[in-house]
Amino acid sequence: MAAKRESGSGGGSILQFAPFQSSVDEGFWHRLSSLKLNKLGIDESPIPITGFYAPCSHLQVSNHLSLLTESLPSDSDEQSSTAEISRGSRNKCTVPGTLYNSNTLESFYTIDKQSLLKQEAKKIWEDIHSGKAVEDSTVLSRFLVISFADLKKWSFHYWFAFPALVLDPPATVVDLKPASLWFSSQEAESVSAACSDWRNSSLTADVPYFLLTIAPNSRATIRHLKDWEACEGDGQKLLFGFYDPCHLQNHPGWPLRNFLALILTRWKLKSVLFLCYRENRGFTDLGLSLVGEALITVPQGWGDHQCVPNTVGWELNKGRKVPRCISLAKSMDPTRLAISAADLNLKLMRWRQLPSLNLDILSSRKCLLLGAGTLGCQVARMLMAWGVRKITLLDNGRVAMSNPLRQSLYTLDDCLNGGDFKAMAAVKSLERIFPAVAAEGVVMAIPMPGHPVPCQEEDSVLDDCRRLTDLILSHDVIFLLTDTRESRWLPTLLCANTNKITITAALGFDSFLVMRHGPGPFSITHDVKTEAVNGLSADMDNLGLNNRDGGQRLGCYFCNDVVAPTDSTANRTLDQQCTVTRPGLAPIASALAVELFVGVLHHPKG
Amino acid sequence: MAAKRESGSGGGSILQFAPFQSSVDEGFWHRLSSLKLNKLGIDESPIPITGFYAPCSHLQVSNHLSLLTESLPSDSDEQSSTAEISRGSRNKCTVPGTLYNSNTLESFYTIDKQSLLKQEAKKIWEDIHSGKAVEDSTVLSRFLVISFADLKKWSFHYWFAFPALVLDPPATVVDLKPASLWFSSQEAESVSAACSDWRNSSLTADVPYFLLTIAPNSRATIRHLKDWEACEGDGQKLLFGFYDPCHLQNHPGWPLRNFLALILTRWKLKSVLFLCYRENRGFTDLGLSLVGEALITVPQGWGDHQCVPNTVGWELNKGRKVPRCISLAKSMDPTRLAISAADLNLKLMRWRQLPSLNLDILSSRKCLLLGAGTLGCQVARMLMAWGVRKITLLDNGRVAMSNPLRQSLYTLDDCLNGGDFKAMAAVKSLERIFPAVAAEGVVMAIPMPGHPVPCQEEDSVLDDCRRLTDLILSHDVIFLLTDTRESRWLPTLLCANTNKITITAALGFDSFLVMRHGPGPFSITHDVKTEAVNGLSADMDNLGLNNRDGGQRLGCYFCNDVVAPTDSTANRTLDQQCTVTRPGLAPIASALAVELFVGVLHHPKG
Repeated sequence: MAAKRESGSGGGSILQFAPFQSSVDEGFWHRLSSLKLNKLGIDESPIPITGFYAPCSHLQVSNHLSLLTESLPSDSDEQSSTAEISRGSRNKCTVPGTLYNSNTLESFYTIDKQSLLKQEAKKIWEDIHSGKAVEDSTVLSRFLVISFADLKKWSFHYWFAFPALVLDPPATVVDLKPASLWFSSQEAESVSAACSDWRNSSLTADVPYFLLTIAPNSRATIRHLKDWEACEGDGQKLLFGFYDPCHLQNHPGWPLRNFLALILTRWKLKSVLFLCYRENRGFTDLGLSLVGEALITVPQGWGDHQCVPNTVGWELNKGRKVPRCISLAKSMDPTRLAISAADLNLKLMRWRQLPSLNLDILSSRKCLLLGAGTLGCQVARMLMAWGVRKITLLDNGRVAMSNPLRQSLYTLDDCLNGGDFKAMAAVKSLERIFPAVAAEGVVMAIPMPGHPVPCQEEDSVLDDCRRLTDLILSHDVIFLLTDTRESRWLPTLLCANTNKITITAALGFDSFLVMRHGPGPFSITHDVKTEAVNGLSADMDNLGLNNRDGGQRLGCYFCNDVVAPTDSTANRTLDQQCTVTRPGLAPIASALAVELFVGVLHHPKG
Repeated sequence: MAAKRESGSGGGSILQFAPFQSSVDEGFWHRLSSLKLNKLGIDESPIPITGFYAPCSHLQVSNHLSLLTESLPSDSDEQSSTAEISRGSRNKCTVPGTLYNSNTLESFYTIDKQSLLKQEAKKIWEDIHSGKAVEDSTVLSRFLVISFADLKKWSFHYWFAFPALVLDPPATVVDLKPASLWFSSQEAESVSAACSDWRNSSLTADVPYFLLTIAPNSRATIRHLKDWEACEGDGQKLLFGFYDPCHLQNHPGWPLRNFLALILTRWKLKSVLFLCYRENRGFTDLGLSLVGEALITVPQGWGDHQCVPNTVGWELNKGRKVPRCISLAKSMDPTRLAISAADLNLKLMRWRQLPSLNLDILSSRKCLLLGAGTLGCQVARMLMAWGVRKITLLDNGRVAMSNPLRQSLYTLDDCLNGGDFKAMAAVKSLERIFPAVAAEGVVMAIPMPGHPVPCQEEDSVLDDCRRLTDLILSHDVIFLLTDTRESRWLPTLLCANTNKITITAALGFDSFLVMRHGPGPFSITHDVKTEAVNGLSADMDNLGLNNRDGGQRLGCYFCNDVVAPTDSTANRTLDQQCTVTRPGLAPIASALAVELFVGVLHHPKG
């Protein structure tokens, strides 16, 4: 080992630096996805981000510059972009960075990387000249990332750059050896103690550049860069220290590059003693840390601070100049993937086509679908596609052999052995399509005028009335999708009385009706849940032509009807029953019913 | 046994008859369903049917009057209503009957049964008076059935009546004993031989009423009823024989009732010797057969043949006057049930709403769907609902997490492990919905202008062009349902060149296009398959503005376009890709595309 160190620290050879290595936590990509989808949309402006690194803390492994969840601003509007980042953690020195996230893979590949790097280097250059880098040395490690987030595939293309100002001629190394060999044992002890203090104070723990002075009595002191004038020329040994993420024994890490540029520019030194500060298992390790002496020369044109020096720093990917790509799809839980995929289609609408789309309104609304047949299946599917997550389906029928071809939630399996209850089979099917849906099935008949009730069934019919009332009260929007006129009667009354948004869809052979009942375009100010609804004698005093707010009530399915609802199924031939419709009608009517629902929720007057 | 027989055959007691029993083969109900659905529609006219019975052939079991598949006319128009029934089978004596199949369960229950019975009895009465019953004695056993066929549930409600003219006062029985006891052994031998001859001749085997004479020398002869005059008064013993389905030893079977009415009306006899002819295992069994003597008196008003006597004969169901019901759903193969259920919805349309609907056209057309995404899934489902059975889906993509919510043939399961190929997953899904579909999946990319082809892929792209050409040639209708403009380009050209009906559907964010390309409204007279299509150099000489028949060609998706198709996916942000559409659009566009297809196929000009 000693021989190796000697060979690496030969006087006069060019000083070479171990590049920074990047690492990105999955949380960063998740937050980026969310930010892009929910807030940024097509905005491609650079995003300020924060990287984290720490001194090397392992004999064999360099530390990385890491992007974590908190590297990005949250997508909720309440928080400021950096509020979350707590300073002072010894293992998370913050570094300012810039993220250029492209809208397309093509622009990711064709972006002018050299110009972006120059732009970032210019900031460093200016911070050096302005003295800002002396005040807040983290800006010396400023970095940038270009990326393309493929939100559909959950794959992320990215490329880091750690801009380093190039010294020309390059620095040469006079001496480079483990700090433990460079210091006397007394000095070493004092240096260790000083470093520990620096690292253990929350005020200084994450300040990665510092000055180390050693008095003739071997006493070591660490100070901020801004204290340079105070130390200079006082006869003490002065070392420029920095947190070195690199573990290599022959090379200092990347942060030294811009540090040398600062020293050269600011203090015009020609010979620099530097300390690559490294730790092992959380403790200062002077055997791993390096001390070296570099000779530096002011490059030509260096004096003109308008002229940014050449810069290097694009990270290599296994030695090649290509970007990296990570796919998170495989490591994600399928249900979570499904949720995010479902949201994706909707949130993308908000980027350009429909910025006013309010997905929260949709996802929080509880929809009650009366009927789980041709219309009910389609409406449920389309509600889910629009982001509705709370769906209750009510039906008392079982899946029959003729259903699956038109009732899009069922398959032949649901018809076997007499058929499953539609309400239950529909819920299972919705969950197979989208596991995060909160769907419920209710197997129940809707009490209907004109259908005689035998004496012994009276109680259960009254029960059904109460259950239906409760269901309507506990939902926000009711869809009437049954196959007879009379089954819409009681729900229509109950919905009107409770001022619920009600949408009816009904099919003929080659005609259909889609309409909205219920409250007119006014805000519902009274809480319907507080109304007394006691069994069948519930007061129906909300059923006047005007609602309580004085607004005019909307009409309903029965408004233009002169015939009272009766049993419409009795004495009907098979072809007069509802399933005889052109197959194309139900999808059209269902789609219009759902689009109407979405429209109503988004209209300023509701 | 002997004692019992004595008690049953006491002189002077009222002669009681064992009622006919009905049995209906499942095949009868299947044919009735088919007839009703495909041919009769809402026509409720009485249907002539044929029942079958045979002499009792078992010691402990009576024979039934059976309805078999061939009891009903076939629903194909080529065959006459009775062509299938071959006369002369000894085990299938035909009996004319009438079926009254109601359109609704209510009318089944409220039908005027007494009047129907009277109507049938009147036919028997008239046949007796006209002498037709002597010529063709089967009309004496004329029967009727009322029924309601619930084609949705595969359940059948029915009720048989075997009209019997009531003698008032009733016939009394003087003697009733096994024929073997009644005949001398010599007579018995000759009777057996005569019966065997009668039953073994195809001319007489199914003639259920006959005359049996026994000469003084014990020689037995069997003759047709019309030969009565020849036998009468020749001093021989004369017995009126009939095939008796009943096995009871104390009662003759039902056919004797109208036989006695005939004898009384026609030949005015007051004392009748009758032979209840029965067999055992196919052979005449005089021990099982009965001979009896009945005394009959002409009832009042019997002479007026305008006045039909009272009639009885509705079959009891386990002793009660209620109809029978059979459900075939459980015994049927699910796939077969699914097929018939699928057909049902469509065939019911033809009853009243759309009599011109040609289901054969639809079921025989081969449809090629280019694209198995949102549009492809919906179009495939709706084609199946319209009765299309041959569907090929082409797609080169895999099911992604965001697909199931909008692409109605997929579930989350199809997305796992990278996702199944859409074309294959769609086929599986179609089969789960309707197992009899002939669906095929083709995983293949459509060659597109503007998408550069690397050198090494040229051959496979040329292959794809050839495959696509072959697919289009081997289908009748092509749906263009892909998500880019350029992927419609080559199919549009190939469809135009091969004069295929082509329907395109395309989605915007809140707009869509559904249109028909291809041949104009003219008949395609040349066989496109005979055209030389050799690889990519296929002659495209059909692409003029006018087609070969001089008719004007229809426009296409690209007709109003001034921009050549290019790669429209490159450099598009996520929200500019196709999935960003209002969820309601795809069902509407797909439905219109399919309805357009159905409309085109049914238009007289095609």
